[in-house]
Amino acid sequence: MDPAWQRSAVAQDLSFLLARSNALSLAVGNAALRDFGLKVRSYPVLSLACDDLRPTQRELADFLRLDPSQVVTLIDDLERQGLVERRPDERDRRSKVVVATSAGRRVCAAARAAVLDAEEHPFAVLSPEEREQLADLLRRVAFPG
Amino acid sequence: MDPAWQRSAVAQDLSFLLARSNALSLAVGNAALRDFGLKVRSYPVLSLACDDLRPTQRELADFLRLDPSQVVTLIDDLERQGLVERRPDERDRRSKVVVATSAGRRVCAAARAAVLDAEEHPFAVLSPEEREQLADLLRRVAFPG
Repeated sequence: MDPAWQRSAVAQDLSFLLARSNALSLAVGNAALRDFGLKVRSYPVLSLACDDLRPTQRELADFLRLDPSQVVTLIDDLERQGLVERRPDERDRRSKVVVATSAGRRVCAAARAAVLDAEEHPFAVLSPEEREQLADLLRRVAFPG
Repeated sequence: MDPAWQRSAVAQDLSFLLARSNALSLAVGNAALRDFGLKVRSYPVLSLACDDLRPTQRELADFLRLDPSQVVTLIDDLERQGLVERRPDERDRRSKVVVATSAGRRVCAAARAAVLDAEEHPFAVLSPEEREQLADLLRRVAFPG
C-alpha cells in the first residue's frame, strides 16, 4: 500500500485502526468458522452457552453489543442446527436461557480450535508478549469499569 | 457485568476483544458524526478525499476493507450532499477519483474534531501512553508488511 495512505489523517485515529484490524480479523474468523456452519456473530453465542452461563437473550445482546432482534436470529439459527436449546430461566420463568446441546459442545470445541488457529494469521505480526499487551489494553476498552 | 462473563472462553480471544471494542467505538463515532450527516463508514471516505490522495473507488475499497459496491454507495451519498465530486483519474482515464469540495473540507474539519472528541469516551480508560501503545500494536495488525 502507498505509504501516503498510511500517513493520512484517518489512519492515525484509534477508532479507524480498530475498525480496520477488526475487519481483517472478521474475514479470517468467518473463513475459519464456515466449515462449522458458524459465523463470527453466532460463534460467541454458542461459546457462551457452552460456558454454562445460561445466558438470557438480553444478556447476550448486552455482552455482544447487538440488537436483541439480531440475537434472536442467531439463537434461532443455532437451534435449527441442533447446537443450542432455549430453556425457561429458573431466575425468571417469563424469560428463556440458552443452553448448549451435546452436539453444540462438540462443534464448539472444534470451532474454538479453528478460531484460535485462524487468529494466528492477523496477529502473527505481534510477538506473544505483544499480543498479551494488546489483549490487556483492549480488555479495558471492551469492559470499562 | 457479572465477572463470570468476563472469564468466559470467548472473552479471552483477541478477535472477540477487538470486535467488542470496535462495537463500542462505532456507536460513539456514529453518534458524533450524525450531526454532520456522516457515519463511521462515510467519514473515512471524505477524510481521504480531503487528504488530496485522489483515491479511486478500488483503492478506497481496499483501504477500508469494504466491497466496491458499498464504496460506490458511500461516494454517492457524499456526492449528493455536495461534499465530494468524482473526477476522471489522470493516471487512467477509464477510472474516477474522489475529490473533496470546499464544503466537504469544511464539514470534514468539523467532523474530525467531533470524532477525536468522541474517541475520548471509549479510550478514556487508557492513559495517553497506553493509547499510543494500542495504536502502535493495532497499526501493525491493520497494515501488515
